[in-house]
Amino acid sequence: MGTNPRVLIWNEYLHEIENEEVAGLYPNGIHGTLAEAFAERGGFDVQTATLREANHGVTPERLAETDVMLWWGHKAHAEVADETAIMVQEAVLSGMGLVVLHSGHMSKPFKRLMGTHGTLRWREADEKERLWNLRPDHPILEGVPEYVELAQEEMYGERFDIPEPDELLMMSWFQGGEVFRSVCTWRRGLGRVVYVRPGHETYPTYHDPMIRRIVVQAAAWATARVRQDASRCPNTTSFEPVPNPTKEHII
Amino acid sequence: MGTNPRVLIWNEYLHEIENEEVAGLYPNGIHGTLAEAFAERGGFDVQTATLREANHGVTPERLAETDVMLWWGHKAHAEVADETAIMVQEAVLSGMGLVVLHSGHMSKPFKRLMGTHGTLRWREADEKERLWNLRPDHPILEGVPEYVELAQEEMYGERFDIPEPDELLMMSWFQGGEVFRSVCTWRRGLGRVVYVRPGHETYPTYHDPMIRRIVVQAAAWATARVRQDASRCPNTTSFEPVPNPTKEHII
Amino acid sequence: MGTNPRVLIWNEYLHEIENEEVAGLYPNGIHGTLAEAFAERGGFDVQTATLREANHGVTPERLAETDVMLWWGHKAHAEVADETAIMVQEAVLSGMGLVVLHSGHMSKPFKRLMGTHGTLRWREADEKERLWNLRPDHPILEGVPEYVELAQEEMYGERFDIPEPDELLMMSWFQGGEVFRSVCTWRRGLGRVVYVRPGHETYPTYHDPMIRRIVVQAAAWATARVRQDASRCPNTTSFEPVPNPTKEHII
Amino acid sequence: MGTNPRVLIWNEYLHEIENEEVAGLYPNGIHGTLAEAFAERGGFDVQTATLREANHGVTPERLAETDVMLWWGHKAHAEVADETAIMVQEAVLSGMGLVVLHSGHMSKPFKRLMGTHGTLRWREADEKERLWNLRPDHPILEGVPEYVELAQEEMYGERFDIPEPDELLMMSWFQGGEVFRSVCTWRRGLGRVVYVRPGHETYPTYHDPMIRRIVVQAAAWATARVRQDASRCPNTTSFEPVPNPTKEHII
Repeated sequence: MGTNPRVLIWNEYLHEIENEEVAGLYPNGIHGTLAEAFAERGGFDVQTATLREANHGVTPERLAETDVMLWWGHKAHAEVADETAIMVQEAVLSGMGLVVLHSGHMSKPFKRLMGTHGTLRWREADEKERLWNLRPDHPILEGVPEYVELAQEEMYGERFDIPEPDELLMMSWFQGGEVFRSVCTWRRGLGRVVYVRPGHETYPTYHDPMIRRIVVQAAAWATARVRQDASRCPNTTSFEPVPNPTKEHII
Repeated sequence: MGTNPRVLIWNEYLHEIENEEVAGLYPNGIHGTLAEAFAERGGFDVQTATLREANHGVTPERLAETDVMLWWGHKAHAEVADETAIMVQEAVLSGMGLVVLHSGHMSKPFKRLMGTHGTLRWREADEKERLWNLRPDHPILEGVPEYVELAQEEMYGERFDIPEPDELLMMSWFQGGEVFRSVCTWRRGLGRVVYVRPGHETYPTYHDPMIRRIVVQAAAWATARVRQDASRCPNTTSFEPVPNPTKEHII
Repeated sequence: MGTNPRVLIWNEYLHEIENEEVAGLYPNGIHGTLAEAFAERGGFDVQTATLREANHGVTPERLAETDVMLWWGHKAHAEVADETAIMVQEAVLSGMGLVVLHSGHMSKPFKRLMGTHGTLRWREADEKERLWNLRPDHPILEGVPEYVELAQEEMYGERFDIPEPDELLMMSWFQGGEVFRSVCTWRRGLGRVVYVRPGHETYPTYHDPMIRRIVVQAAAWATARVRQDASRCPNTTSFEPVPNPTKEHII
Repeated sequence: MGTNPRVLIWNEYLHEIENEEVAGLYPNGIHGTLAEAFAERGGFDVQTATLREANHGVTPERLAETDVMLWWGHKAHAEVADETAIMVQEAVLSGMGLVVLHSGHMSKPFKRLMGTHGTLRWREADEKERLWNLRPDHPILEGVPEYVELAQEEMYGERFDIPEPDELLMMSWFQGGEVFRSVCTWRRGLGRVVYVRPGHETYPTYHDPMIRRIVVQAAAWATARVRQDASRCPNTTSFEPVPNPTKEHII
């Protein structure tokens, strides 16, 4: 891959233009705030795309030049064209990374890659969340302490309808009595998928330095290592001629 | 669940009516031969369905009364309606078992549940296959020896484009130089999925007693344990009132 | 295996004879209370063993006739002979099940089978625990609701130093702000290992019907399916003579 | 961590001084040949240690300054002091990487970390091995083609008595009819463990450029990310005061 990971931040970008409270928190959109987090860290080439752009801002050519994509969506999952979701899925299978954020647990690309509903229980009660670090050794959690605390967040609770994660990195505790698998990774095809839970639009979560660190490091970790199409089944006509063993006495 | 597992064997049923050689091996269709294997073992209520029946023989009502489904398809995956594939996927997520056979690795239900291409390399050369038993402790392999040998089979070779299996039970060796993850399990939602590789239509594989044993035991293992819909996200309005600790001295 | 699973409940049995409060909760020892839970459910042949018996009540002959063992230990892990721990480990590798309870996370057999420290953070503050059910489909959790609540328990918090579980079945929420992977399974050799967190000696946890259900079902699930020694490396002198493919045209 | 990974190659170093054929292949010992592979690649600080040195060349101080260790042993596993094996195990749990080579599958450090016998079937028949690449996306297999072929190697066959690998990267095909999980990874504590199968002392395996690439990349991947002791259970005396939710209406 190239020198800097090429990051494409996709955002639904509706709450920010329809709701004053959200606009106050994310005046340039959630994608804008996330782009700032990458700029702050340095070493990434970042672009953004939003739902209401032509083709939702997603084309095969653009994905071919993307090493890792972030996805934030919530109220308009159904508005995303199936063709776009398939395009993202196939880019992941060919090696592109995908970091799915918060309410993206019900987005079309995530559901297609997981094969499950992605459902969970939820509550909005301005409650405290603590994300516990299960893997201080993992590159995504480099520099992250034993737990990260957010004063107020939306609650997501188990059962989270997902396939068994390849890696479970953080688990959340919520004030109101629930727990959640909050940072998880899966490999799909040649690509890496990360889910990062926090980030409800009515809270300043993406301004939190630790959450920014986790999101940026998730993207760095998911960055494509290879990129190759695996959508065909090759017919192998060669057949290995297998001689007898050469050793006199098999032991 | 009921007393006997309710098994639905789905078969494409085209090779058997279009090709004399295949008809000779499977005069009642592959589904018919598999149904005999279940009857032989006893303790199952078996029905069958085929592609060219109305609705491919698959309705929500029928799936609601199925504990585990088997799927054999090959040349007409595209002919299966998307609605049918989605129906099977959702039945699995709600608890139904699914045993995907041989060329079903590219079937719509399997691909939807895995999220990957399901591609692999292949060769037809009448070559020997040996399936090695990695899990003599697993119920699917009860009574299965260290390896099962098939004199002639189609070759399937890695890289098999699947998510990391939850359990890898058998690996195949092929005479011509390839290897393959041949018996794998995954959980998806509340359901269990098993992939069983052997079973090319031009070989008598489903008459082999050990392969029959593995297929029947895979179905028994995948049989639904619960059945409940998980396609909605419940809003939890209760909030746990959390008193202070009651112990005088926290230690 | 035989008709009824043969269960051996091993208990340290020191707190109950040294501490009045614990004696009040478990007058016949924790092993006695657990034995009652198995009797209540029915269908098990149960024996018990304790630390201060000769050989800690554990001999190769006894283990050979045990299908699944339970282990409760806390303050005297070091008093268990290494030979006993190795004996239990080897029985598991040959197929015996092992259910490790609560403070058994630091017991010698568990540490030998996991290869890790088994460490965690802890607090005694009479606080509330909620165990969330991630796998309503799993036999160990049959009949277990969305969560199980214990009014008072000792807190165990992450990071729990264990290998990635094969299956993560329940996660705990604690009133004081922590989370924990509370019901986990691993396969080791031909045997199954389950860890079940709750059960501090100063609380009536093993009188709770749901905890009893989970412990008994964990034992049923872990019951040996096969029993065979795998401690030797067989030398294979046979060598498969590999002829050329018989098909005229490899396709 | 430092700039260059600090690598410690441990070798039994007996075959090379007792057997002329082996001495001819590895005149500076297997450790010497492996050290050359690291030097060729560049960017590593490499040291070596052998069985017959004082303390087998392994002290806590030396391990504290090692980021990743390689282990080749075969005929003298029993000669390795238990204290040394425990030292290596604890270094891994605190973050050090460990790459176990070939017959190291029965070495004390590997068995302690896995908790299993590490047994397998084997044959010496100068037969061909093909290692198939299941994970072209994995850093350990960067630049490795679809398969790597070795003209002659010792056969290792399943069932390999190991815990389910976290990642299965390569599977071997052997001319005589067996298969094997040849490149596997596990996390244990804060450290990473890799097993790499090929490398029998009577073959020039460690002169093969692709095998050298895999071994070096395994070491790079397993290099410690953090280093911290996790052998104690911290008592947590703080207790989170949990206020009621602040939102007027919980939704």
